[in-house]
Amino acid sequence: MALNRDQFAAWDKKDPLAPFREEFLLPPGVIYLDGNSLGALPEKTPERMREIIEREWGRDLIRSWNTNDWIRYPRRVGDKIASLIGADAGEVVAADSTSVNLFKLLGAALQMRPDRLVILSEQENFPTDLYMAQGLINFLGKGYRLRLVGHSEIAGAIDEEVAVVTATHTNFRSGRLHDMGKLTRAAHDRGALMLWDLSHSAGAMPVHLNRHQVDLAVGCGYKFLNGGPGAPAFLFVARRHQDVISPPLSGWMGHEAPFAFDTDYRPAAGIERQLCGTPSVLAMAALEVGVDMLARADISRLREKSQRLGDLFLQLAEEQCGEFPLTPACPPDSNERGSQVSLRHSEGHAIMHALIARGVIGDFRAPDIIRFGLTPLYLRYVDVWDAVVALREILESETWRRPEFQKRQTVT
Amino acid sequence: MALNRDQFAAWDKKDPLAPFREEFLLPPGVIYLDGNSLGALPEKTPERMREIIEREWGRDLIRSWNTNDWIRYPRRVGDKIASLIGADAGEVVAADSTSVNLFKLLGAALQMRPDRLVILSEQENFPTDLYMAQGLINFLGKGYRLRLVGHSEIAGAIDEEVAVVTATHTNFRSGRLHDMGKLTRAAHDRGALMLWDLSHSAGAMPVHLNRHQVDLAVGCGYKFLNGGPGAPAFLFVARRHQDVISPPLSGWMGHEAPFAFDTDYRPAAGIERQLCGTPSVLAMAALEVGVDMLARADISRLREKSQRLGDLFLQLAEEQCGEFPLTPACPPDSNERGSQVSLRHSEGHAIMHALIARGVIGDFRAPDIIRFGLTPLYLRYVDVWDAVVALREILESETWRRPEFQKRQTVT
Repeated sequence: MALNRDQFAAWDKKDPLAPFREEFLLPPGVIYLDGNSLGALPEKTPERMREIIEREWGRDLIRSWNTNDWIRYPRRVGDKIASLIGADAGEVVAADSTSVNLFKLLGAALQMRPDRLVILSEQENFPTDLYMAQGLINFLGKGYRLRLVGHSEIAGAIDEEVAVVTATHTNFRSGRLHDMGKLTRAAHDRGALMLWDLSHSAGAMPVHLNRHQVDLAVGCGYKFLNGGPGAPAFLFVARRHQDVISPPLSGWMGHEAPFAFDTDYRPAAGIERQLCGTPSVLAMAALEVGVDMLARADISRLREKSQRLGDLFLQLAEEQCGEFPLTPACPPDSNERGSQVSLRHSEGHAIMHALIARGVIGDFRAPDIIRFGLTPLYLRYVDVWDAVVALREILESETWRRPEFQKRQTVT
Repeated sequence: MALNRDQFAAWDKKDPLAPFREEFLLPPGVIYLDGNSLGALPEKTPERMREIIEREWGRDLIRSWNTNDWIRYPRRVGDKIASLIGADAGEVVAADSTSVNLFKLLGAALQMRPDRLVILSEQENFPTDLYMAQGLINFLGKGYRLRLVGHSEIAGAIDEEVAVVTATHTNFRSGRLHDMGKLTRAAHDRGALMLWDLSHSAGAMPVHLNRHQVDLAVGCGYKFLNGGPGAPAFLFVARRHQDVISPPLSGWMGHEAPFAFDTDYRPAAGIERQLCGTPSVLAMAALEVGVDMLARADISRLREKSQRLGDLFLQLAEEQCGEFPLTPACPPDSNERGSQVSLRHSEGHAIMHALIARGVIGDFRAPDIIRFGLTPLYLRYVDVWDAVVALREILESETWRRPEFQKRQTVT
């Protein structure tokens, strides 16, 4: 029997995560399926931001570094993120951007394997990860190389030349998941280090960095962590590696005693040496609100709902849109899929703009993928129903042919 | 004749910059002399932050990258900062931290002078500048070296080994200014590049990067630009150098077409290639408010008032505190001094804490310097009077001996 909207409404009624939706300030008339690109605004964020701006900055001024403990922000938020990704306190800091953190850790990895010259990654990795690796090896010269292979070929491509394998846990286009344990073991079996990009995984599903003995990781604060546009990113260094790294970006916030103002750099012990310049305190405050909310959610339950939302989305798309040239671009098995579904259509760009005009906000990833992020903290089952129905109506009526939807935008 | 408070009050009455004070939310009972470390809160910032958080992030969500032009934030704010430092539009971007920007530009400079191995700087440079240079040369290996000399010895120490000279325009401890034109010419005469750190100068005095043919510069957003704690920093690359640089930190925001999601890095034309990861949009918004306010002030007038405040501070300290072992640690000639005065006292740390307890907020820089930032946008002449009187009373009554003032804090 075909699905119907009442079923979806009934699942919402029974959804133990449903109350979290009330903790977000979502605009009326919008079905937001882009929380994997920019998470929604938590209800508590405006108030916390007012407080840090007016009281901590405005009234307490410079004293806040002590009295409001601004100085420990990167570590405090890092510890909270650690608990979401299977790391221990003292193994994560919130800092800089994902790209900058990747440079730090790729650079560190090359130093830790001085006899090896290859960074191994996948062709389909998120582009900035590849760009950072390219910039790094060009900058270092000395014969360093970036080797790129297909998603399923990575494990087999690890050899004794590879210093570090870097991959994104959830692929940004297809949503396909890597087997974190398997690929990490494959890297270790060949003496290479493993660096995971968790940008599309952290806060969306259980991640077990230490269970899998992962060496290094980076991730994003503005997607599933709901930290706000351009939120600070995070990085993880397994405790066993922390004190052997000489950070290439050796700024004062990573110094053993930043306020001694010594002439010589002496790295702080532990994860703190991965800090560099002064972090945006305002941005840290917004990130902390998002992370705190996730800490209250049961992350296994989040994953369960997210898988179900994805399965329903795909089933419904098949039922409602089967007659149109729309093909899944994500794994059908939710165990192999991150918290998103992706569909392929040659007119994907225009179709997504027609959806957005109707208040169904997903995004487009070149060349032909429409992408729907599934954020179980604030997404309802009926949202999936309504989104797919909107998609069918757009395909049926061919509204995507309108000139305004054919126009390209800077960012999609 | 000795100075008296009425004179100071009279100068405030005639001060053309006085109305700007009303545009800051300053806490009652505080004399804020630390705006060179963290600028005060502009009155317009809370409202703008509410708008960007609730409307642009909360309501418009991911669409804001287009509709609210988030994507051009680094360039837009950069253009505004350019006008404060004698640069042209398209030569500055707001991005990352000062430390990270320094790494980018020192790295670029070494590439631009491939036959030279030395970064030349001064022993008394701001520590993170030295730390970043140390991390960079360690990371690159290949015989790169950091050569450090005294403040007045730099020009003479430039030889054919020096790829880049890097110095901070206003010294953070002493406030001593470099002659930007003279040192830049000395670098060029020997074929070296010149990289200025403008952290304590931008927004405090006229700076003429292009008049002096400066090559590269970085600077801070949270001091005289009043951009908020940990605000994005900025960097300048003279137009003639922009397209020869292969950025070591080659992130997607510096890509020619970030949203094409190509596998290969192709640097954007011009200054945009200096961007790396996704910037904090919230932090950019706060920075823009501060920069916009400075753009309305006459920067020569700011400098004039700042010099006068400094001269009066030193004269008054001599008159009121001459009997105590307090000695100037800054140049007596205001033309050689940035927008701060510094005094030396072996009990400086405790004295500063006693001042702060009275609401006179300056800061301490090891080993023995008490530092007073002069921010002519919001500082009154009477503030200088009241601050020095408070200082005298603390020295007279020796309140700095109290145990609570002797205690060291994390940050000062």
